[in-house]
Amino acid sequence: MPLDPAAIQALTFDVFGTVVDWRSSLIREGEALGQARGLHVDWAKFADAWRGLYQPQLERVRSGAQPWTKLDDLHRAALDQLLVDFKITGLSESEVDHLNRAWHRLDPWPDAVPGLTRLKRRYTLATLSNGNVALIVNMARRAGLPWDAVLGAEVARHYKPQREAYLTTADMLGLRPEQCLMVAAHNGDLAAASSFGLRTAFVPRPTEHGPGQTADVRPARDWDVVADSFVDLAARLGC
Amino acid sequence: MPLDPAAIQALTFDVFGTVVDWRSSLIREGEALGQARGLHVDWAKFADAWRGLYQPQLERVRSGAQPWTKLDDLHRAALDQLLVDFKITGLSESEVDHLNRAWHRLDPWPDAVPGLTRLKRRYTLATLSNGNVALIVNMARRAGLPWDAVLGAEVARHYKPQREAYLTTADMLGLRPEQCLMVAAHNGDLAAASSFGLRTAFVPRPTEHGPGQTADVRPARDWDVVADSFVDLAARLGC
Repeated sequence: MPLDPAAIQALTFDVFGTVVDWRSSLIREGEALGQARGLHVDWAKFADAWRGLYQPQLERVRSGAQPWTKLDDLHRAALDQLLVDFKITGLSESEVDHLNRAWHRLDPWPDAVPGLTRLKRRYTLATLSNGNVALIVNMARRAGLPWDAVLGAEVARHYKPQREAYLTTADMLGLRPEQCLMVAAHNGDLAAASSFGLRTAFVPRPTEHGPGQTADVRPARDWDVVADSFVDLAARLGC
Repeated sequence: MPLDPAAIQALTFDVFGTVVDWRSSLIREGEALGQARGLHVDWAKFADAWRGLYQPQLERVRSGAQPWTKLDDLHRAALDQLLVDFKITGLSESEVDHLNRAWHRLDPWPDAVPGLTRLKRRYTLATLSNGNVALIVNMARRAGLPWDAVLGAEVARHYKPQREAYLTTADMLGLRPEQCLMVAAHNGDLAAASSFGLRTAFVPRPTEHGPGQTADVRPARDWDVVADSFVDLAARLGC
């Protein structure tokens, strides 16, 4: 069924990769720390390794092998392991905590704030991220991301792509799933959202994983909307 | 211990009565409906009766006599009863639903938006209301209330003054209770917040219940901050 923009009440956003450029931001944070503390680390490798531990960690929570744990704490467990793997020593607890909170200081893609600002005029904008509330709120305050609501995994206590993450978000917005348009740079996220009744918008971020990215550079299916930026998404929805 | 504004990271707000003038707004909505449909109703009495059913309804949920029910649905159950009590007939389902959503269209006190705008520069602003997320989000979009996060009862699945409402909100903000300043026009709300470790700011709203209000016109205890408006609160916190 073709998408009627008037039937949509809220846009729900994946955040890491879709709204913010986590990889460049982590490299920037790592390099600043390296400079200050005289560390010789390949921060691109470090960022990729950190993100690489993410899905296995989430899977332990999704499967029930580990009780509910917020993403800040999963990030910290991964970081503690990576500091050993990368032979980074001598950091104080407050330096490690600051590095862990680099995830709270990710920079948005250049089109994110202008696009969201336009979209907000007509639609409720909610996050539907695996990031915990504090992480997303701190990121938004720093970057000027104009969310109406910060929902998603922590509020539902289920990580995407589990159904509760999507359906609790729609329910808390007072909406039926088909009144929500899931916006993501990841085909898998949209496939899950679609299977639970949400409509779908794909905005590719072909450098999310750096040069040479092959995954998610194009839509895997005929999503309701395909846009090349948030500004283009606003235009396609008539905002 | 005197309040150090630098030790506070977030302000958590009661909403009904503290941020918005529910009574005048409900009267306005009732009168508009009455005009359109030729109804002769004392809308001030109607508004007071509607709000009067609130605590008994919440108590049934708090006690476990009724499973978790979001405030929109409690408002609707109360409204259905009041339509009978006030002998209001002939409304369509969509008119009744629109009237129920008058709670999404409450007007802020005149100082609310200017005060919040100043406070937001330094502090994270979160709602800690018994209102459900959709209600608070829709109200904020209409009134321009610049929340960073909409938390409180629905997210915690416990109505104030139960401890989970306060402590889940602080936890989701990534803060200890004493890093949160609860802002309310109600001494009871502040007493609960204080007992769970939050700091307290009282902003009286002496006409919340209309002329002749006697409850909550002054602080019942030596709260951390007493301010006569949100703008005054911002000044007292050095914003």
